[in-house]
Amino acid sequence: MISFLNDYNALACKEVMEDLTKYSLEYNVGYAQDIHTISAINLIRKELKRDSDIYFLAGGTQTNRIGLYQMLKPYEAVICVETGHINVHETGAVESTGHKVLTTKGKDGKLVLSEVDEVLALHNNSHLVLPRAIYITDSTEIGTIYTLKELKEISDYAHKHNLYLYLDGARLGVALNAKENDIELSDLAKYTDMFYIGGTKNGAPLGEALIINNEELKNGFSYLLKNQGGLFAKGYLCGIIFESLFTNDLYNKNAKNSLDKANKLRNVFKKHNIKEAYENPTNQIFVYLTDSQAEYISKYALFELWEKKEISIYRFVTNFNSKDSDIEDFDNILSKL
Amino acid sequence: MISFLNDYNALACKEVMEDLTKYSLEYNVGYAQDIHTISAINLIRKELKRDSDIYFLAGGTQTNRIGLYQMLKPYEAVICVETGHINVHETGAVESTGHKVLTTKGKDGKLVLSEVDEVLALHNNSHLVLPRAIYITDSTEIGTIYTLKELKEISDYAHKHNLYLYLDGARLGVALNAKENDIELSDLAKYTDMFYIGGTKNGAPLGEALIINNEELKNGFSYLLKNQGGLFAKGYLCGIIFESLFTNDLYNKNAKNSLDKANKLRNVFKKHNIKEAYENPTNQIFVYLTDSQAEYISKYALFELWEKKEISIYRFVTNFNSKDSDIEDFDNILSKL
Amino acid sequence: MISFLNDYNALACKEVMEDLTKYSLEYNVGYAQDIHTISAINLIRKELKRDSDIYFLAGGTQTNRIGLYQMLKPYEAVICVETGHINVHETGAVESTGHKVLTTKGKDGKLVLSEVDEVLALHNNSHLVLPRAIYITDSTEIGTIYTLKELKEISDYAHKHNLYLYLDGARLGVALNAKENDIELSDLAKYTDMFYIGGTKNGAPLGEALIINNEELKNGFSYLLKNQGGLFAKGYLCGIIFESLFTNDLYNKNAKNSLDKANKLRNVFKKHNIKEAYENPTNQIFVYLTDSQAEYISKYALFELWEKKEISIYRFVTNFNSKDSDIEDFDNILSKL
Amino acid sequence: MISFLNDYNALACKEVMEDLTKYSLEYNVGYAQDIHTISAINLIRKELKRDSDIYFLAGGTQTNRIGLYQMLKPYEAVICVETGHINVHETGAVESTGHKVLTTKGKDGKLVLSEVDEVLALHNNSHLVLPRAIYITDSTEIGTIYTLKELKEISDYAHKHNLYLYLDGARLGVALNAKENDIELSDLAKYTDMFYIGGTKNGAPLGEALIINNEELKNGFSYLLKNQGGLFAKGYLCGIIFESLFTNDLYNKNAKNSLDKANKLRNVFKKHNIKEAYENPTNQIFVYLTDSQAEYISKYALFELWEKKEISIYRFVTNFNSKDSDIEDFDNILSKL
Repeated sequence: MISFLNDYNALACKEVMEDLTKYSLEYNVGYAQDIHTISAINLIRKELKRDSDIYFLAGGTQTNRIGLYQMLKPYEAVICVETGHINVHETGAVESTGHKVLTTKGKDGKLVLSEVDEVLALHNNSHLVLPRAIYITDSTEIGTIYTLKELKEISDYAHKHNLYLYLDGARLGVALNAKENDIELSDLAKYTDMFYIGGTKNGAPLGEALIINNEELKNGFSYLLKNQGGLFAKGYLCGIIFESLFTNDLYNKNAKNSLDKANKLRNVFKKHNIKEAYENPTNQIFVYLTDSQAEYISKYALFELWEKKEISIYRFVTNFNSKDSDIEDFDNILSKL
Repeated sequence: MISFLNDYNALACKEVMEDLTKYSLEYNVGYAQDIHTISAINLIRKELKRDSDIYFLAGGTQTNRIGLYQMLKPYEAVICVETGHINVHETGAVESTGHKVLTTKGKDGKLVLSEVDEVLALHNNSHLVLPRAIYITDSTEIGTIYTLKELKEISDYAHKHNLYLYLDGARLGVALNAKENDIELSDLAKYTDMFYIGGTKNGAPLGEALIINNEELKNGFSYLLKNQGGLFAKGYLCGIIFESLFTNDLYNKNAKNSLDKANKLRNVFKKHNIKEAYENPTNQIFVYLTDSQAEYISKYALFELWEKKEISIYRFVTNFNSKDSDIEDFDNILSKL
Repeated sequence: MISFLNDYNALACKEVMEDLTKYSLEYNVGYAQDIHTISAINLIRKELKRDSDIYFLAGGTQTNRIGLYQMLKPYEAVICVETGHINVHETGAVESTGHKVLTTKGKDGKLVLSEVDEVLALHNNSHLVLPRAIYITDSTEIGTIYTLKELKEISDYAHKHNLYLYLDGARLGVALNAKENDIELSDLAKYTDMFYIGGTKNGAPLGEALIINNEELKNGFSYLLKNQGGLFAKGYLCGIIFESLFTNDLYNKNAKNSLDKANKLRNVFKKHNIKEAYENPTNQIFVYLTDSQAEYISKYALFELWEKKEISIYRFVTNFNSKDSDIEDFDNILSKL
Repeated sequence: MISFLNDYNALACKEVMEDLTKYSLEYNVGYAQDIHTISAINLIRKELKRDSDIYFLAGGTQTNRIGLYQMLKPYEAVICVETGHINVHETGAVESTGHKVLTTKGKDGKLVLSEVDEVLALHNNSHLVLPRAIYITDSTEIGTIYTLKELKEISDYAHKHNLYLYLDGARLGVALNAKENDIELSDLAKYTDMFYIGGTKNGAPLGEALIINNEELKNGFSYLLKNQGGLFAKGYLCGIIFESLFTNDLYNKNAKNSLDKANKLRNVFKKHNIKEAYENPTNQIFVYLTDSQAEYISKYALFELWEKKEISIYRFVTNFNSKDSDIEDFDNILSKL
């Protein structure tokens, strides 16, 4: 069975596992004060070209939840597109900290500023929540990516309107390594107030690196992290992982493998006349399949139903561990359709 | 430098690391629906002799926070001893979910029911919080352990007074394997409503197994876990870890090593006329040291100041990775005092 | 200046003020244990034909916030129409208790069950919030009312799908006294799990009567009320007010005056060829006015801009204190348009 | 039956009721933007000699809850004496907003700074909550009052240690009018960051005036008030009440009556050799009564058991409505003991 189910279905890449094994009996101080964590922070800061505060958390929902909680006063709200992960797929994690998620329609999974204008125009007095942050994702829920120009525009808009900009980087690796991409980590450090570099979906067994760029948001975060149950006793676990990912370009290498296999998979679909639903340059491929096509393929490969329709949309995802042979095998499978 | 700093200073025991490496590229479904998680749950249930619900969380504070949150309605409170971890060392994590922690003095780090009587007598109307849970720890903050008789009495008391019983098992391994202990996992399944088996302090890189015994408390927990940011995408990470810990008696083996080295360390202290402050049968040793003794020892070993006094109390902790040679070396160090 | 600004712009009707004055120096026990509160509860229960629990709270937002908080576990959500007061005009009060508000488009300000179907179909696993309550308003934000048939259908639907039904009765008086209405208080007691009878917008200086019909929701409410800052020390303040409102049919009398004046005002608008935007049978009248019409009228009367458009919509509201002379004067004003 | 039960057992003094009646049919804009609210704010500001922000809330628990919520970030805590109202008698209202209440023993119901030192020394890292506010009450739970010197010392201490000072003035009227008092409202405006002037216990049917002195704490409070369900639609209700209380010295007049009757009642107890338990200069009198004394008196007067002991302590409270004849009648009753 070939797995295109998602990008968090295999535990960890070889290099990360080797480093974890290497340091498994080494003594380290707890609570993220150890040398690996410090080293990982320094490696990341070098790419950020900025003295941002960096914390390692377990997963994406936790990171979004605690990161946005740090940004918002009790009556403040965050704006995102309807399909935003925080709005739909986090079981109300943001609301659990007391904050409303305000939504706009968006386009191609991305935020449209004219729609944010309408939200701000409506929310103009203390009987409605006070919008205070914008949440975007790169790559988005449907695999699209932001351009540097778009990022700058959203950043300028946000800061002009007294909003913080938060970027969810669960799939940042494939976004930054996509062929069309022109954003660098240092741009995110410059244009967002907070963002995270996702490890879980890029070859780490767990871990997201939350980056706090805005000075106003740095104070007290270590307290909030502990208070919300997000601090690891063995902080060096994520320290070692991110030290590994940011050594020898491993983070990009993992992402590039996902992208390479995704592009090859796209060609296979094209070759077999299977049409993409949401074209995008990253590692999530959304295609239209008839019921019988889907049934046939599901005997040989793992993938996900995305949207039930007359001709439904299915999602195929490549990952750090996808292989050329997976694509070749899949091509053969489709040939027998 | 010998480390007696604590029991979460080395990442993971050899067996756990080997299993993680073995399965690192295996495909598994996400969100704790995988075969390793199921297998780990079954292995633990076998020891519990009960069909409890079992979830794997990242760390102790998170587990206490979400576990107690599941137990309590907004106006309900939990009772524990003043030194309880949730009362002091979790940055208000329980209060962050809206709940008051009510405290009693306790004795030897353990709960005294006559003191709970006073709390219940005071809290008898809706102008005060409604006590609804008792929180105890085994082993306690100062290393002492409960007897089966005490556990039963507290359980009976709790249920008679419409209180749930929650047991924090961050250091459950050393408690259950201590020579004086007469409690088994199946007793905890029987007498508590919820408890957790700590992995982090017993050879796992992370992970606590939260056990829900009371049917009333099972419903909806998977939602709460996600809502509070406690669900792992790669749930099989903890699945593999606990599968490993509950295979070939590894969980007990790790604890027994901690205890063996602790008892040897106790003898070394005794031999050198250094007195224990809180006698206990587990892996935390609290001793009185003069300032000059502490200063001298600190050149050769890592340990922690516990309580500043004229003659201060210091804590030495052994772990899954402590070695006979550590104790012998330490004996030599003390000989030169 | 004639006020059609809203229905909470005059403090209290004569009868309520007289009763408050009459009992102002009488000794009463505190915290809603007094004889007036008991009497008010009994008067209301008589109309409910049910042994519901009844509490008096200060205002609508507080009542919705605490009432829904009592209904929902941390990860559960409430469904309402987009225009629902809790969704827009309560500064995120429901979210402040940790709960997501899920919205549907609705029709004429009322809930459409086929749209709720879609919400339930989407929210079918623990990665999304769990819908657990339906919130409706009678009369709605745009003055429309539910029929008994609709109420029954929504109630049946809710209970079939394990949802509680909550009804916001901020303007219940005018809803129940509208000519087209066929719902009685006893129907609300039967078909909703919780609802409130609004006092503030029907002649009381403050006060809403929250009615808990469902046994499951009764337990612990007095604790939650105090915990959330909603309990009055002088509970008899609202006790006296609702005793007054439910004596000599005062509650209906106040509402009927609002309705009578609203219908007369409707006729005046019709006479002057000013068109209603959202036709409805209660005390809120929404009309289209040109900018110059609005400017002219605003010299003589208070009213509110509802929706800015080419031809904007304005809201005129009558109240317990509106007078025939107000309508006659307004007719004269319009005659000079 | 004479009532010494408490100071919130009669609805309102004559002057307040007359003003409410006078304005009962006057049209006013909603949500505390009306002329009475503005006038009340100006009257109070004149006494504060400071441009503080002022809001009118319904009751003490709500005011403490929302006021402290405005002060504290999620992981921050408030320090008060064990007997503090927020610690015991508010059903965990402060914790319901996520904040821990840290306690000190105190002396005579008042805060002792050397005890606060210990709390601060313990809470020195991010594994414990961050103390950020001090809460005191004047008069205290047992009727004692602070001197100006004490207030200054606590204020200096708080600000030196980066703590806000909050003063609960539920019974501020009797504190400021006590013979021994040397604090003025303008001192509270100068030395506290936030405090409230209690109306409920000094002749108002409801209402507390929350005073925000510190600029840092002003921003966003109107949002928080609505978000937490504390904003009145008919804000002019409290506007009229406080306009009344701060006209013709009514606030002090009410308090002086309570104090005058309390002092006369003290003399009656002294005359009959009944001993005070907690001597204090305000309107709460705590006396030792034997069971038979208490039983006898309870046939003629209302009062409260404060602390059950061999010789129990009972509380007698005078109020704005207490009369000389009450004291004379009570003297006669005691004469027959």
